Amino acid sequence: MTSSDHGDDVTPVRALREMVEQFVAERNWHSFHNPKNLAMSLGIETGELMEHFQWLTLEEAAAVQNDPERKHEVGEELADCLAYILAIANVMDFDLSSTLAAKMRRNAEKYPAD
Amino acid sequence: MTSSDHGDDVTPVRALREMVEQFVAERNWHSFHNPKNLAMSLGIETGELMEHFQWLTLEEAAAVQNDPERKHEVGEELADCLAYILAIANVMDFDLSSTLAAKMRRNAEKYPAD
Amino acid sequence: MTSSDHGDDVTPVRALREMVEQFVAERNWHSFHNPKNLAMSLGIETGELMEHFQWLTLEEAAAVQNDPERKHEVGEELADCLAYILAIANVMDFDLSSTLAAKMRRNAEKYPAD
Amino acid sequence: MTSSDHGDDVTPVRALREMVEQFVAERNWHSFHNPKNLAMSLGIETGELMEHFQWLTLEEAAAVQNDPERKHEVGEELADCLAYILAIANVMDFDLSSTLAAKMRRNAEKYPAD
Repeated sequence: MTSSDHGDDVTPVRALREMVEQFVAERNWHSFHNPKNLAMSLGIETGELMEHFQWLTLEEAAAVQNDPERKHEVGEELADCLAYILAIANVMDFDLSSTLAAKMRRNAEKYPAD
Repeated sequence: MTSSDHGDDVTPVRALREMVEQFVAERNWHSFHNPKNLAMSLGIETGELMEHFQWLTLEEAAAVQNDPERKHEVGEELADCLAYILAIANVMDFDLSSTLAAKMRRNAEKYPAD
Repeated sequence: MTSSDHGDDVTPVRALREMVEQFVAERNWHSFHNPKNLAMSLGIETGELMEHFQWLTLEEAAAVQNDPERKHEVGEELADCLAYILAIANVMDFDLSSTLAAKMRRNAEKYPAD
Repeated sequence: MTSSDHGDDVTPVRALREMVEQFVAERNWHSFHNPKNLAMSLGIETGELMEHFQWLTLEEAAAVQNDPERKHEVGEELADCLAYILAIANVMDFDLSSTLAAKMRRNAEKYPAD
């Protein structure tokens, strides 16, 4: 996991995918990593992420990043969400970089910038 | 978006984040990109992702990747989910690579491999 | 569906459950009504409900009920969410009234009033 | 809460709504019960419901109702989901019985029986 510790500027998406792949392989969890289960898992983790903002005003939500402890907790949930997206990419064999680029181009057609 | 078109092996996470950041900036949508709204948005997109697997058996769900059209549709929803995770990282200033690495280490303590 | 048209004051919960049960039976959809699929379905419909509030401030969200057209749309999503809860109760054989009463008593212990 | 303890056959939907309303009122939580917060809360509780089925096959999911302890746990999450639907109906002033009946009629047009 060395490369990923060097941050988003230098870490290729592949390194994040491999982090998740290695975790799954070491536990023999491949049989559970069905796309249906993983989509559901993303829903569950997103629920845990939303829990941190459930009763906050938008102002309070924007201020969470200034509270190191709460920011850390949100980061943990965000990481779990990301891990399931990477797991889906691994199991269904998506290239996330090109899939995202293609979708952003479609979104740009749907919502033209001025 | 050139670099991201070269795939996960060579695309740094930062390039994906910038793709989303540029999209938001060009539309002046920063005021909407509150963490509460974005967490909710991830929940909405995850719902659209789950919709593709809603009534499928696990066997059918595993076979979706062999159907190019359906795989493409799933990829579009997965990309939207990823975009909101990147948007949350942008607005709350998370380094996703190190946040994920730290969380995977914690998950490894919680679920030791054998 | 006559009784249910008389409103919440006089409609027993059973009548709502039967509305959903009849709909499922007439379409021979019982084989799809597995609790895992139905929990996922509730997640999907909740996403559609959240979509109406995604970018709104809390003030704007509170005002939606004063806009008949938008209120109607929210009602349609809320009804779909309720339908899946009733479907889960039907398939797993829960009495919703006593299950809710028991849970509210537990919640009251967890969050004592004053 | 007496009437609700008599089960779905005799409990009017209004009694369930009042159970939730009383709980909210006794804790002075009305200011938090904004439709945006409540829709998000339904998403969170649905995540907890899905957690019980996350890694199960459809056969295993169908068998949960035969395991009293697990069935009880699912019931608690289902009750929390229902409570938030009732809370949204309370705060936005929906009649759930007629809203559901109207939506089921629309669904029947969309998906005709045979």
